[in-house]
Amino acid sequence: MKDLGEMTIPTYADVEAAHARIAPHIHRTPVLTSSYFNALSGAELFFKCENFQKAGAFKVRGASNAVFGLSDEMAAKGVATHSSGNHALSLSYAAGRRGIPCHVVMPRTAPQAKKDAVRGYGGIITECAPSTSSREEVFAQVQAETGAEFVHPYNDPRVIAGQATCSKELLAQVEGLDAVIAPIGGGGMVSGTCLTLSNIAPHIEIYAAEPEQADDAYRSFKAGHIIADDAPSTVADGLKVPLKELTWHFVSTHVTDILTATEQEIIDAMKLTWQRMKIVIEPSCAVPLATILKNREVFAGKRVGVIITGGNVDLDTLPWIKG
Amino acid sequence: MKDLGEMTIPTYADVEAAHARIAPHIHRTPVLTSSYFNALSGAELFFKCENFQKAGAFKVRGASNAVFGLSDEMAAKGVATHSSGNHALSLSYAAGRRGIPCHVVMPRTAPQAKKDAVRGYGGIITECAPSTSSREEVFAQVQAETGAEFVHPYNDPRVIAGQATCSKELLAQVEGLDAVIAPIGGGGMVSGTCLTLSNIAPHIEIYAAEPEQADDAYRSFKAGHIIADDAPSTVADGLKVPLKELTWHFVSTHVTDILTATEQEIIDAMKLTWQRMKIVIEPSCAVPLATILKNREVFAGKRVGVIITGGNVDLDTLPWIKG
Repeated sequence: MKDLGEMTIPTYADVEAAHARIAPHIHRTPVLTSSYFNALSGAELFFKCENFQKAGAFKVRGASNAVFGLSDEMAAKGVATHSSGNHALSLSYAAGRRGIPCHVVMPRTAPQAKKDAVRGYGGIITECAPSTSSREEVFAQVQAETGAEFVHPYNDPRVIAGQATCSKELLAQVEGLDAVIAPIGGGGMVSGTCLTLSNIAPHIEIYAAEPEQADDAYRSFKAGHIIADDAPSTVADGLKVPLKELTWHFVSTHVTDILTATEQEIIDAMKLTWQRMKIVIEPSCAVPLATILKNREVFAGKRVGVIITGGNVDLDTLPWIKG
Repeated sequence: MKDLGEMTIPTYADVEAAHARIAPHIHRTPVLTSSYFNALSGAELFFKCENFQKAGAFKVRGASNAVFGLSDEMAAKGVATHSSGNHALSLSYAAGRRGIPCHVVMPRTAPQAKKDAVRGYGGIITECAPSTSSREEVFAQVQAETGAEFVHPYNDPRVIAGQATCSKELLAQVEGLDAVIAPIGGGGMVSGTCLTLSNIAPHIEIYAAEPEQADDAYRSFKAGHIIADDAPSTVADGLKVPLKELTWHFVSTHVTDILTATEQEIIDAMKLTWQRMKIVIEPSCAVPLATILKNREVFAGKRVGVIITGGNVDLDTLPWIKG
């Protein structure tokens, strides 16, 4: 870790330490290719399939790094977060592997399926009202009562170092990449990608892909400072959260460009991936493919790593089937 | 090939020849595992993922063996079949790779999506009325006009030798298997599995899995002679076809047992596979998992190869979503 005064930045040594620490608890996920998508894009695409990851998403890398990096004394008090998505599942999974409690604060209005999934991985849910103030109040109370260590979903150097192990693996699995593309929400995965590539393969371009309807990272990138969205709405619900100072540091320093896609483009790319590659992916990870297909001139002729971030989908309500 | 008078039986030498012949045209598909399904079943399951196969199904193995085994003279006239399923796609794909025509006779009432898929692989469709007599009449006409070689979806020694390469690969990928299970419709995959295992691993048990609502193979197996179903109806639409003499030869000689599952059990196993393994599988290949979960005592403690036969699904009408 490198102390920059106002924040602590993870270094590549932290990524190597993270990989050694979490290797027993995660999958080295496979890289798939598709002659269909290669022909369609004019590029050579290498899909890093974190949908096959433990708990169904890359977030288990950062969560495991945070959990297994705690001293025994700290670990005994458990970990805590407020999230209703993949980070909550992943932190619950990692805490379960270490045998410590994981406290998750979730609005009582969250879908039952999400609550069940967190409990399925052993997470302990404390419900709050569906407002930021209630969430913060209840979360402070849980932390005060338990002394649990807060693990932020992305604005945490331990988490970013963990996510960075994904592109570290990808580079070991595929030779001669020209570019890597990942979806961007809070920026944890993109920051991890920046951390790895800027250190061991700085010639590789880094693209971030974002829904047009939640394009705060795109607008921040163009403006040169963080701009937060006001209540974005997108099918790629993992990508609604804003950048924070730590992820902004990496994004503003190392990202080549941010590309956006419409809701329909995202849904089409998602369905086409299921259809042709026979894999279940979340809407969020269809965004990179959608931007590749609409920006052919950027990627044609290149060898491109595409991070498939997760596969946790509600199979009862698919975005291309009208309910 | 071994000539038994009334029929020609493929031998293991044919399987080895088939594998060498088709290797450039097919994927060596991966074997996936799932700690979730291992815990649920009490067995160690190894999923041979033919849903990732070219054209989306194992049938490309048999079809490619037939197509690439033709003399140049025969090949020039093309191949022909009547099927609206994976065999038609696979034969079209293989013919396309060899650069020869593939004629497919399909009822004009077949879903547009199936016609589009066959044409997408370069197949030439000739439509018939939706009756067996019309199909046979139109097919005879197409054959007479073109001289194309008929490739039956399963009752063909070249096709069975091709399908047999799937379990040949599986044995090379997984050590110490105690059993292999595959879905049974016409019996092409199960016959191929019998052909390989009876020759190179005769101690491994062979199970076939069938929908209760299309249980002609089950009833044939128990009766000791072929019994055909009268218009079976099941969500596992690849499994409606009956055994024929060649597949009955293998099934009656080498299969350990045939197990059945209800429609709901099949749909549940299919959805659970999508949810937990993040792979898109057809209803047909959920039948083995459904029977494993309901016959725990048969499989617990064993290392079991499970053939995932294909992933060609209409994503607009999923069986667990009411339209």
